[in-house]
Amino acid sequence: MKLPLGYAYAAAYAGIRNVETPDLALIVSGLPANAAAVFTQNRVQAAPVKLSRRHLKLSGGLAGAILANAGNANCATRTGDAVALASAKAAAKLLRLPVAQVLVASTGVIGVELDASKITQALPRLVASLSGERFDDVARAIMTTDLVPKTAFGEVKLRRGTVRVAGMTKGSGMIQPLMATTLGFVLTDADIPLAALRAMLKRTVERSYNRLSVDGDTSTNDTLALLANSASGVRPDPKEMPKMEEAIGRVMESLAQAIARDGEGAKKFVTIVVSGAPSNDAAARMARGIANSPLVKTAIAGSDPNWGRILSAAGNAGVAFDPAKTDVHMQGLAVCKGGLAAPFSEVELKRKLDAPECEIRVTIRGKGKGETRFWTCDLTEGYIRINGSYRT
Amino acid sequence: MKLPLGYAYAAAYAGIRNVETPDLALIVSGLPANAAAVFTQNRVQAAPVKLSRRHLKLSGGLAGAILANAGNANCATRTGDAVALASAKAAAKLLRLPVAQVLVASTGVIGVELDASKITQALPRLVASLSGERFDDVARAIMTTDLVPKTAFGEVKLRRGTVRVAGMTKGSGMIQPLMATTLGFVLTDADIPLAALRAMLKRTVERSYNRLSVDGDTSTNDTLALLANSASGVRPDPKEMPKMEEAIGRVMESLAQAIARDGEGAKKFVTIVVSGAPSNDAAARMARGIANSPLVKTAIAGSDPNWGRILSAAGNAGVAFDPAKTDVHMQGLAVCKGGLAAPFSEVELKRKLDAPECEIRVTIRGKGKGETRFWTCDLTEGYIRINGSYRT
Repeated sequence: MKLPLGYAYAAAYAGIRNVETPDLALIVSGLPANAAAVFTQNRVQAAPVKLSRRHLKLSGGLAGAILANAGNANCATRTGDAVALASAKAAAKLLRLPVAQVLVASTGVIGVELDASKITQALPRLVASLSGERFDDVARAIMTTDLVPKTAFGEVKLRRGTVRVAGMTKGSGMIQPLMATTLGFVLTDADIPLAALRAMLKRTVERSYNRLSVDGDTSTNDTLALLANSASGVRPDPKEMPKMEEAIGRVMESLAQAIARDGEGAKKFVTIVVSGAPSNDAAARMARGIANSPLVKTAIAGSDPNWGRILSAAGNAGVAFDPAKTDVHMQGLAVCKGGLAAPFSEVELKRKLDAPECEIRVTIRGKGKGETRFWTCDLTEGYIRINGSYRT
Repeated sequence: MKLPLGYAYAAAYAGIRNVETPDLALIVSGLPANAAAVFTQNRVQAAPVKLSRRHLKLSGGLAGAILANAGNANCATRTGDAVALASAKAAAKLLRLPVAQVLVASTGVIGVELDASKITQALPRLVASLSGERFDDVARAIMTTDLVPKTAFGEVKLRRGTVRVAGMTKGSGMIQPLMATTLGFVLTDADIPLAALRAMLKRTVERSYNRLSVDGDTSTNDTLALLANSASGVRPDPKEMPKMEEAIGRVMESLAQAIARDGEGAKKFVTIVVSGAPSNDAAARMARGIANSPLVKTAIAGSDPNWGRILSAAGNAGVAFDPAKTDVHMQGLAVCKGGLAAPFSEVELKRKLDAPECEIRVTIRGKGKGETRFWTCDLTEGYIRINGSYRT
């Protein structure tokens, strides 16, 4: 699948992280792109989050570049705001863009001063090496505890021509996106008016990033930006907008799933399907409650069909439902019918739970139409090891 | 310290758990006691929770006995209600009590049928062995993954004489009491009118059990019962009620702390103090957010002074506060001032964090008067090991 037209990419090691792997990345759109973004709902927000929000407002929703770094969240530091602004300014100058058309994003440790000169000194090299092919290099440069880079691609055939969508994201701890998660960039060369782009982002983030949790911790730096630069020259017909939105939604779902698959220490990818809840939102709350229960997550890690924990976690989600009308399936096997133990083969289910992908299905029988699909991972000793000494 | 007068205790192995250690326990009050209780707020409630709630209503707040078992939660099973009732009836008959004066409580695995005959067959032995001294035996019989039994004692000198308070409880996983936690029994021989007893329980549970989380999972079986049997013949004067309440509150705080200390896999006991929040409730929500953050808990386990995670977790609690006015202390050392990194000695703080007790203090400078003290534990690989195969 081809990359969207009209974007260029670069990544380099700027000395921000301790290990010498690329930690600074640049995405540039030749034409200023219509841009929509969602940011963390955490009360504590990193400097780049605040600056990017302001820039989108000042530019009227136009972006020409995204400058991102890993290794330092640029959050809760004395010089954070100045560092974010100096970085954006330096990039704008080199790229001959209004500074408000530069978005910035950071990920890494919180509360450690970020040295702006590391970024400004690396920027000329970065700009000099921009290439339309180096998409994967950027996806690698924004990784922190991720084991694999996370990208997803789509293509939509519209009446006037074909447009492309490409997305990248990172994980893999401090992940419970509420609005968006830690650094996701989705690019398309379609020509999508800003209002439509914003509406699309709002709906697609709800079905993708906002249906994901690794550890229930919402980061201070969550930033998801969706850029449409119209480099394809193709504008979807009004009737084709759902098709366009579907392509963007699929890329974002795929990115969100990739984060859960690569959750810190994760060995298993878990899909939670809730149906029959009072509303979609209620279904999502129940699914989130199950996804964030360490008891459910450790049972999955141990292939233990401990469905009582699933029912208990659903019961703690603050949603009114009747346990007596609730069924639970694990890996397609009924383990609980009407809130009570259903007969199942322990040996068979344990074997099925050894698979790298697990499905938990909670069905409330009745009139409720609320449903959701939610992604998470198991909780293993690896998570503890990674996070016992992340900072030091 | 002496036990409260007028109570007798017994414990035995009834074959409910796989390992042969006592799993059935009985507490009997010679005089019917005024009784108040709080139960889990989980939407999914175990049969003994539902029966005990009904019994307290039917008896008008009188209890003569508490029958408790470990090894099976008697929750989400087909026969659960019948088993709970049959157990209570059998105990009532042997003790010559109205059945509504028998409270029942269970803890253990969810969704596995509990065989009532194991309980009814063991009951005569249990009743025959009742003794005023076997308090600790009961505390041991209700243990599940607990490493140590949990008891606390108090004594209050009142104008008319001395009264005693004794409490027992269990942990140590599926612990985030919201209302009360998994099996706590607090007994006093004071003569406290029912209305006053209920009000005391409501206030004291708020400052003790409801300020505790091991893993953020609220159990289906949480039951905390407070009995006052007036065996001392001493009724506190109206003016002495605060003193009485203080003694009960201390016993309950001590029990709640004991659960955190013995949290599954825990190596460290963590106290979180939040002050300057908009309200006590807001302070408690922030503290709970910090206590339930796996990233904070793993950092504590690794003695990593990663205070950014503390600030981020506080920011996710849904409480409006200004990070720029927020200070964070760990082990008494300022690590964050006004939302920004404060200079501290990494080596010194790491050494201090190796202690078995850790304190996190979040102070919001401003007009807010809300404060709280909250208890939790660190998250270690031990938690994962215990919960990967709890059921099987």
